[in-house]
Amino acid sequence: MSEIIKNEVTELVNSILEDYKNGRTIDNAELWNQPDTDIIKDITSKLLKIVFPGYFREQGYKFYTLSSRLTVLIEDVMYNLNRQINIVLKQMPESAGKNEAEIDKRAQELCISYFKMIPEIRALIDTDVKATYDGDPAAFNYNEIILCYPGLYAIAVSRLAHGLVTLGVPLIPRIMTEQAHSRTGIDINPGATIGKYFFIDHGTGIVVGETTIIGDNVKIYQGVTIGALSTRGGQRLKGAKRHPTIEDNVTIYSGASILGGETVIGHDSVIGSNAFITKSVAPNTRVTIKNLELNMKQFDEGSSASW
Amino acid sequence: MSEIIKNEVTELVNSILEDYKNGRTIDNAELWNQPDTDIIKDITSKLLKIVFPGYFREQGYKFYTLSSRLTVLIEDVMYNLNRQINIVLKQMPESAGKNEAEIDKRAQELCISYFKMIPEIRALIDTDVKATYDGDPAAFNYNEIILCYPGLYAIAVSRLAHGLVTLGVPLIPRIMTEQAHSRTGIDINPGATIGKYFFIDHGTGIVVGETTIIGDNVKIYQGVTIGALSTRGGQRLKGAKRHPTIEDNVTIYSGASILGGETVIGHDSVIGSNAFITKSVAPNTRVTIKNLELNMKQFDEGSSASW
Amino acid sequence: MSEIIKNEVTELVNSILEDYKNGRTIDNAELWNQPDTDIIKDITSKLLKIVFPGYFREQGYKFYTLSSRLTVLIEDVMYNLNRQINIVLKQMPESAGKNEAEIDKRAQELCISYFKMIPEIRALIDTDVKATYDGDPAAFNYNEIILCYPGLYAIAVSRLAHGLVTLGVPLIPRIMTEQAHSRTGIDINPGATIGKYFFIDHGTGIVVGETTIIGDNVKIYQGVTIGALSTRGGQRLKGAKRHPTIEDNVTIYSGASILGGETVIGHDSVIGSNAFITKSVAPNTRVTIKNLELNMKQFDEGSSASW
Repeated sequence: MSEIIKNEVTELVNSILEDYKNGRTIDNAELWNQPDTDIIKDITSKLLKIVFPGYFREQGYKFYTLSSRLTVLIEDVMYNLNRQINIVLKQMPESAGKNEAEIDKRAQELCISYFKMIPEIRALIDTDVKATYDGDPAAFNYNEIILCYPGLYAIAVSRLAHGLVTLGVPLIPRIMTEQAHSRTGIDINPGATIGKYFFIDHGTGIVVGETTIIGDNVKIYQGVTIGALSTRGGQRLKGAKRHPTIEDNVTIYSGASILGGETVIGHDSVIGSNAFITKSVAPNTRVTIKNLELNMKQFDEGSSASW
Repeated sequence: MSEIIKNEVTELVNSILEDYKNGRTIDNAELWNQPDTDIIKDITSKLLKIVFPGYFREQGYKFYTLSSRLTVLIEDVMYNLNRQINIVLKQMPESAGKNEAEIDKRAQELCISYFKMIPEIRALIDTDVKATYDGDPAAFNYNEIILCYPGLYAIAVSRLAHGLVTLGVPLIPRIMTEQAHSRTGIDINPGATIGKYFFIDHGTGIVVGETTIIGDNVKIYQGVTIGALSTRGGQRLKGAKRHPTIEDNVTIYSGASILGGETVIGHDSVIGSNAFITKSVAPNTRVTIKNLELNMKQFDEGSSASW
Repeated sequence: MSEIIKNEVTELVNSILEDYKNGRTIDNAELWNQPDTDIIKDITSKLLKIVFPGYFREQGYKFYTLSSRLTVLIEDVMYNLNRQINIVLKQMPESAGKNEAEIDKRAQELCISYFKMIPEIRALIDTDVKATYDGDPAAFNYNEIILCYPGLYAIAVSRLAHGLVTLGVPLIPRIMTEQAHSRTGIDINPGATIGKYFFIDHGTGIVVGETTIIGDNVKIYQGVTIGALSTRGGQRLKGAKRHPTIEDNVTIYSGASILGGETVIGHDSVIGSNAFITKSVAPNTRVTIKNLELNMKQFDEGSSASW
């Protein structure tokens, strides 16, 4: 390092340390009281290995029986998930006044309850794999879907995260789905309740809000928003149903927006591309937007006006 | 690990092992018969180093001649790509009854044929770099484009993956383009055929379907879909031309959707933002949507209604 | 490696080496004259640790006082940022004829000036955390926002990158924001000028162009474009104001596009979903698109036409 820079470092360190003393949210330096996003990423990736035992091979281990391999995976996830739950429980207002042992015990119970849900979550994810294959002529086989389809990945992670939400674990589920959002462009809030055979095609730009309820056999395409009408109420709206209900067998084509907590899309309906819906739709309805009038203007053949 | 958790692990392992016995797709545990997505990511990244020799520096090696560096890179990619092709060939119905040696030989031939295509792929990618620089006033220089433009990255990976598609290699190309999709939000199916000088600006939210054909000098912006009209036929539509043809010198602005296998956008046309097109457009046409009527309502100056 | 492949490698290496001799942009093999995208990613991640001292724990170190931890972080970033700035300065036309020592001195000065901006950048990011919490009823607490909200992440990185832009450092800022774009689907050009209390909800598919100016208390949702009307002028438009100005207290709902360098959205206005705006909007205006007419068609109850 150059002398000039060396001489400046102490001064810079001091000025930034000084800046940490403003007591703002971002000045929080309680290093050991936050969940660790890297460990949560690792937990998600190991949970996916448990869900799809044949598809995600570890690099580091070589186990020749599925049973010992699974034991190691589960112990590993247990240990880390337990610690992360412990950390986030302490951030809950209801933990005030509880002692370390009580919180620890609660974390352990939650962790075990969660693992008991895994077979049920696997059963749902299996239906999503089938729905994806049946819905996409470009799919080569089931393996391709499990190995690389972003829609299936986002759904699987949201189902795993939703399990934690139902147990009342805060923070960790959202960190899990935001990591999937980052990887896929599909933002499914872990609070959303989603039925069997869910299929997301292409995926990028999808938003599914926290209090959404989705039935069975629902299909959605890129750019679809299932969102809130307005969040002007801010934190006062916490817990209110702000997002729509989508009944069974509904297809929502690309770019459509369905908004509002009282909006219900009736079963067996089809919502056309770019429709903007803020009121309920009866069952068995095909909704299309009146085609936008297109202006077609010919360029002069000889001109170079094209671009 | 706490005693409580320890005592539960055996039981949990057994219940999940039991769940694996349902014979569903996701219960597949043939660990060694799936392509490895991490290795394919590494192959793509090394192919990009071969395409752009000066831009992607390895951390691990130090080679002082380009020739020895390139030899090591190519041997590495060869070895790994050969093994991955071997694995996926076995998943093809036409491999039934073929012995290991036959499949191995075919994998090697495919691998060598693929490497012979590299100069041709590089020539195309060079035109994309130029098209990007010419099209974007925010570009500082060519280096910036190669180092960090997501559009160029997605195009380069899709050209590399398309090479494998033309050789009939399944699964691997889609894994490659889905990794680029994940990184960029640009979903170009590796089956798409794309001409010279292709420019994608901003990129997020773009979908280019499997049977799309794109000519030379085409420019597309964020949120554009070149897709299928409907995939209700599911797997029965496999192989059918379901996506449009875009002729030379066409510009497609943000949010436009062009759908259907018989839709042709004639050369030198310009498709305006948010246009939704399901029929062919003659050459030299400027298509714009009739401007949506906007309602403008003034807030009471004194009120706090804004938010 | 099989014999067949071994025998082919030399030939393939030679043909690709031959292809490198075309003198095209992509044939550039000046290995040591490009910024290193991995090192820039590491710099960004360490700058974020300096911004949020309690949230991003290192894996590798254990420091028990904030002061020594911060010193190590700052020295590390200093060293690497200094080297990267040095590399990119050499790509500036104005560096022609300058000697190594002059460029080195300039890199050091820029690096120190940059670190002096950190407290000011932290003060802005603190307002963004608050705006996000106030705007999103789904937020559990401030920690959740800092740990996993993509909108906050993209804003924080763009503020850090914008600092370098104001110092005249090329290339590095765009590499930083493109890495955030890749992670979030939010494409904020580092040239954009952004006021206090900026809130981005959901985020995927957002584009904020290079010459955009955004005031205080602005809220934008997924799919919003603040972009150029046309970039047909290509590189000739470099430096021109091509993107809109958004005044204080404006909310822009999902999918809206606001285009053009002369377009000003007046303070306290609300732009409705999917509005497409290419002209200025007066202050205190609510802009909504005239609702698109929706066609509702009932399916025959008994039919299986739904999908």
